[in-house]
Amino acid sequence: MFFASDNWSGAHPAIGEALIREQTGYAAAYGTSALDRRIEQRFNEIFEREVAVYFVGTGTAANSLGLSAFGKPGGVVFCHAEAHIANDEGGAPEFFASGGRLAKVAGPHGKMIAQNLEDMIARYPASFIHAGQPAAVSLTQSTEIGTVYGLDEIDALTAVARRHGLPVHMDGARFANALAALDVSPAEMTWKRGVDLVSFGGTKNGCWCAEAIVFMNPDQAKDMPYIRKRAAHLFSKTRFIAAQFDGYLTDNLWLDLARHANRMADRLRAAFRISNRARLAWETQSNEVFIILPKASAGAARAAGANFYDWLVPVDQPGLVQPDEVLARCVTSFATREEEIDQFVSFLGEK
Amino acid sequence: MFFASDNWSGAHPAIGEALIREQTGYAAAYGTSALDRRIEQRFNEIFEREVAVYFVGTGTAANSLGLSAFGKPGGVVFCHAEAHIANDEGGAPEFFASGGRLAKVAGPHGKMIAQNLEDMIARYPASFIHAGQPAAVSLTQSTEIGTVYGLDEIDALTAVARRHGLPVHMDGARFANALAALDVSPAEMTWKRGVDLVSFGGTKNGCWCAEAIVFMNPDQAKDMPYIRKRAAHLFSKTRFIAAQFDGYLTDNLWLDLARHANRMADRLRAAFRISNRARLAWETQSNEVFIILPKASAGAARAAGANFYDWLVPVDQPGLVQPDEVLARCVTSFATREEEIDQFVSFLGEK
Amino acid sequence: MFFASDNWSGAHPAIGEALIREQTGYAAAYGTSALDRRIEQRFNEIFEREVAVYFVGTGTAANSLGLSAFGKPGGVVFCHAEAHIANDEGGAPEFFASGGRLAKVAGPHGKMIAQNLEDMIARYPASFIHAGQPAAVSLTQSTEIGTVYGLDEIDALTAVARRHGLPVHMDGARFANALAALDVSPAEMTWKRGVDLVSFGGTKNGCWCAEAIVFMNPDQAKDMPYIRKRAAHLFSKTRFIAAQFDGYLTDNLWLDLARHANRMADRLRAAFRISNRARLAWETQSNEVFIILPKASAGAARAAGANFYDWLVPVDQPGLVQPDEVLARCVTSFATREEEIDQFVSFLGEK
Amino acid sequence: MFFASDNWSGAHPAIGEALIREQTGYAAAYGTSALDRRIEQRFNEIFEREVAVYFVGTGTAANSLGLSAFGKPGGVVFCHAEAHIANDEGGAPEFFASGGRLAKVAGPHGKMIAQNLEDMIARYPASFIHAGQPAAVSLTQSTEIGTVYGLDEIDALTAVARRHGLPVHMDGARFANALAALDVSPAEMTWKRGVDLVSFGGTKNGCWCAEAIVFMNPDQAKDMPYIRKRAAHLFSKTRFIAAQFDGYLTDNLWLDLARHANRMADRLRAAFRISNRARLAWETQSNEVFIILPKASAGAARAAGANFYDWLVPVDQPGLVQPDEVLARCVTSFATREEEIDQFVSFLGEK
Repeated sequence: MFFASDNWSGAHPAIGEALIREQTGYAAAYGTSALDRRIEQRFNEIFEREVAVYFVGTGTAANSLGLSAFGKPGGVVFCHAEAHIANDEGGAPEFFASGGRLAKVAGPHGKMIAQNLEDMIARYPASFIHAGQPAAVSLTQSTEIGTVYGLDEIDALTAVARRHGLPVHMDGARFANALAALDVSPAEMTWKRGVDLVSFGGTKNGCWCAEAIVFMNPDQAKDMPYIRKRAAHLFSKTRFIAAQFDGYLTDNLWLDLARHANRMADRLRAAFRISNRARLAWETQSNEVFIILPKASAGAARAAGANFYDWLVPVDQPGLVQPDEVLARCVTSFATREEEIDQFVSFLGEK
Repeated sequence: MFFASDNWSGAHPAIGEALIREQTGYAAAYGTSALDRRIEQRFNEIFEREVAVYFVGTGTAANSLGLSAFGKPGGVVFCHAEAHIANDEGGAPEFFASGGRLAKVAGPHGKMIAQNLEDMIARYPASFIHAGQPAAVSLTQSTEIGTVYGLDEIDALTAVARRHGLPVHMDGARFANALAALDVSPAEMTWKRGVDLVSFGGTKNGCWCAEAIVFMNPDQAKDMPYIRKRAAHLFSKTRFIAAQFDGYLTDNLWLDLARHANRMADRLRAAFRISNRARLAWETQSNEVFIILPKASAGAARAAGANFYDWLVPVDQPGLVQPDEVLARCVTSFATREEEIDQFVSFLGEK
Repeated sequence: MFFASDNWSGAHPAIGEALIREQTGYAAAYGTSALDRRIEQRFNEIFEREVAVYFVGTGTAANSLGLSAFGKPGGVVFCHAEAHIANDEGGAPEFFASGGRLAKVAGPHGKMIAQNLEDMIARYPASFIHAGQPAAVSLTQSTEIGTVYGLDEIDALTAVARRHGLPVHMDGARFANALAALDVSPAEMTWKRGVDLVSFGGTKNGCWCAEAIVFMNPDQAKDMPYIRKRAAHLFSKTRFIAAQFDGYLTDNLWLDLARHANRMADRLRAAFRISNRARLAWETQSNEVFIILPKASAGAARAAGANFYDWLVPVDQPGLVQPDEVLARCVTSFATREEEIDQFVSFLGEK
Repeated sequence: MFFASDNWSGAHPAIGEALIREQTGYAAAYGTSALDRRIEQRFNEIFEREVAVYFVGTGTAANSLGLSAFGKPGGVVFCHAEAHIANDEGGAPEFFASGGRLAKVAGPHGKMIAQNLEDMIARYPASFIHAGQPAAVSLTQSTEIGTVYGLDEIDALTAVARRHGLPVHMDGARFANALAALDVSPAEMTWKRGVDLVSFGGTKNGCWCAEAIVFMNPDQAKDMPYIRKRAAHLFSKTRFIAAQFDGYLTDNLWLDLARHANRMADRLRAAFRISNRARLAWETQSNEVFIILPKASAGAARAAGANFYDWLVPVDQPGLVQPDEVLARCVTSFATREEEIDQFVSFLGEK
């Protein structure tokens, strides 16, 4: 019953096998091997256009280095108040942008809304240089609280960004889960909506450490080789990341794994929609489920081997949780088994 | 006949197996799993003292992040003019030290000598703040050109550093090769000599991507968790690095692999000491061998499948190479086979 | 009728005279002249202890460089949501702290309150390195909206900081105005309250460009010479800043000027407390007065030569201003004359 | 007999008078006043084209901020080994370029030569990203050792830069002295030669603190307002810098002052060319004169009130100075009087 995070899982066997296949033999280092080239080509297919791809080892690196390519002196990146880049990356986005800043945009369900974004951008007018200058917009798909932006919601945000000449970044640490939830193609969810840059995450969905920075327009990536190198994120044996993506992307394994994780979350959601021992905190669409349950029940579940994180109550929903209750985050992954779900639900589900 | 670099090799099978063992099951993320703890403990044994260990994915990260822990405003790190941090890390050491600088110290055989270090430090006196302030000394063991500092040579440099209150870093991308060459213990080559910080490399010697930042005095490492996180080098599934080290360090595999690489280099050295078709550029002691050969021979060897880099002639040996010759670097690794050596020598060795 | 900002005024004649006195003759550069030494000594007297003083040319430099001395990797500085460092310094505090961040603490009347500070610090626990680590607390005295922290309010905040081992910075761009408002000594308002570092502003109160970074404990300032030099804020002819402070601090001119500015603000406040054509937005205690007036009146006043800024309505007082009204900031300075006040009031005061 | 540095002098009376004129009255802050605009226009006239001008307070700020506008990730600026940016700015150029680096180019007489520049740039080929990427070329005019680049020498360097697509910066801390030495116009010495950016120094030549960053092509300056603000170098009362330049540039005072300083240096040079008690270390053309004299004589001169710096022997002239001699730098300025020269020469000149 491991629901603490999708990064507590190991690797899918196909990823491990792909690595072992690359174990022997020699290959050019620093991203120049035939395998690197082949996987980059695979990304072109996935996005249905020529993209520029840079492999890195962590999602924080993908977000921070990618965004820094859009950095400006005094630059400000607009993101949701609950964004991973704002709260969970130890200042990396600000550091790699050499003192860049984030402006936190409010919005219900963990999603920015266009008007709030517009209003926040308006606080950085060209006439007031003391505030700094807008640099980029970053949205998380799926969001930190398990929801998923609809295509129209993305359209609305990218329209604001375009109006202000700002590039749009998508933090896709759970990109596959969002795709599976929306049942759309990568192109439909990104550049066809006006997204310029994607942090394409593989780690949470079955890889060991495989993340890709994907620029929809390769011209915008011309400094990325130097950005990555200077950040010490250019691996010498990059083929071990490429090999993970090889296993990950072959035969659409990645989408199958995300669908599985989402289905496991569906099973949790279904159970807690009707339970009288715990309740859904809010509806989610991907592989994260938030439930509210009595503190005593949470303790009992943990005693029985369940593993999940207590979560901070969102600032915009102050009355959500009663004093004797806790808000719990449950994350499913490629590795989650139905039995784990059912065992968990037997403690906390319908009575 | 792959001699381009030790990072062109893949992974030793024991490393792959250790990874596969960790493939299934759940474990706490971000460096807090039982395996992480166990491997950290293993480092204590290896260094015969309690050390502070931080896993990262690249040697450049180990060097840059480790050194940044000793950073100071206006700080200057003293290293050899041929050091990897000075020439091959894309400015990462300077970047992570927020504009730190490197002062290049000359010395024969790729090694700093104490007097030159002393003289260079003297150019940054406390009375002249415009120059900046000394921050640390960094030496590479084994060096970029295949030589190895003797224990007495390390002593001489650390004595200078200590006199100026400067911590000492050892870039150990090829730490195991140096240990094997000197046949001493890690403790004897590091803290017993006055070294404070080691970039402990596993990648070039059989891992996929496993490097450790090792502080001899854990008190000096108190900011490292934040430094690593802010640099986006904290992996969520750190256990995949820990697992590599598990395979690497078990039964002293790492030293066996380094000894093998050095032996393969010995075989090359022996052949070129007596060859009349190519000659050693200088004596080396670890797994790098530099030879001077006619351009035509280099071309022929490459045509026959040999793979090696042309190397820049060191600035302090301007007349080393004739116009019709090239300086070639040949690096052996855990994966090098005797037959590769012999095949190469058959082209270029004794005639 | 110039009320746009106290930095629209020029220099007090005594400042100009002090400069002219230093015009001829030679003196050692870079902060080492006899005059520099003498003025530093004067700061010791003013603060009734041995302090470490560094002259710079802008208030933003004083804040940013001073705070950076307390910087930590992943470090977070806690300040009020309306703080100058958060909204008006173009990212300088974050830049000089190499990607440092600010956490905005709410509080009425432009002042942080202890509980809110405590709650915000709690979001950066040592157990969650992903958030970063607390680095310092910064409070503005007088505040951006014209209020002044009482001594007990400072005590409450520094107590929280001390409990968390955090140093406390006071942005004193209007330090003298606050002192005058409280009628206390510099020591009483700073180190006796637990303040470690003061940005001591002279520019807004009659100097051309004279700001001092003042560390109450010189031991904490040991890197400042290098921080200032690396930031390009070490003037070669520092004596021209020292000379300004010479004029400024002689015979307590600085306090006289601040009292004058505050008195001019009193005159404005008194008028608008009883006016039926405009009203005080909130009570202030220093040289800033905020009034709410009909848009038409604001236009008429400007047409008649009055000069002031429209101000953003504070987020915590959304209903403060009616649609046909504006919030206006009026700042007095050493140069403000009674006639200007009276002329302004004749347009907008009691009817 | 003050020859330590031109920054030991105070201000020319016309500068002081211009300041006093601006003492009273109000003016818009942060570089937007009528005076700011007027002086910016004056720079257009001086450079015979529309330029973009940014006032700052130190020469290090001018160099560092200007160069950072040309910064790139992993970027390298090429300058002479003796350049002020390399040795005397405490790491500011590297800091403001977020970890930028300087590559030191050798050349006789304190000047880079084209072939050496070409060779150094060649060490950063696009095919080897590990080295970083060339970002700009910076030359100092007049140089740190008193020499002046001829127009043809500048042409040769800018041709190399242009071939590699690199912008060219001129550190003009002693710009006026170089102009006076060459007797050419600012346009002829800069953009007509291919220079893109000038650090236009006023401080050493009679101002208190007045430096201008001048972009020949305003399009290249679009981020400068934010760069300057983020660096805390935007003064609120910028008019006090503008006023200095007003005095400085009116009636070509600046050129008159530079010519005076150069003439005083000529007088020194003439005396030491024929002295048998001291000798010129090398020929110079601007307001710096380097002499070699017996240690005993240096001591005696100092005892008699002479003031000058001992200078490090350039690395490319190791045998220049005998053990019982010192190399002394003597700098003249707008304030130097003939009597000072003559008095100095009476100690050390012809016998």
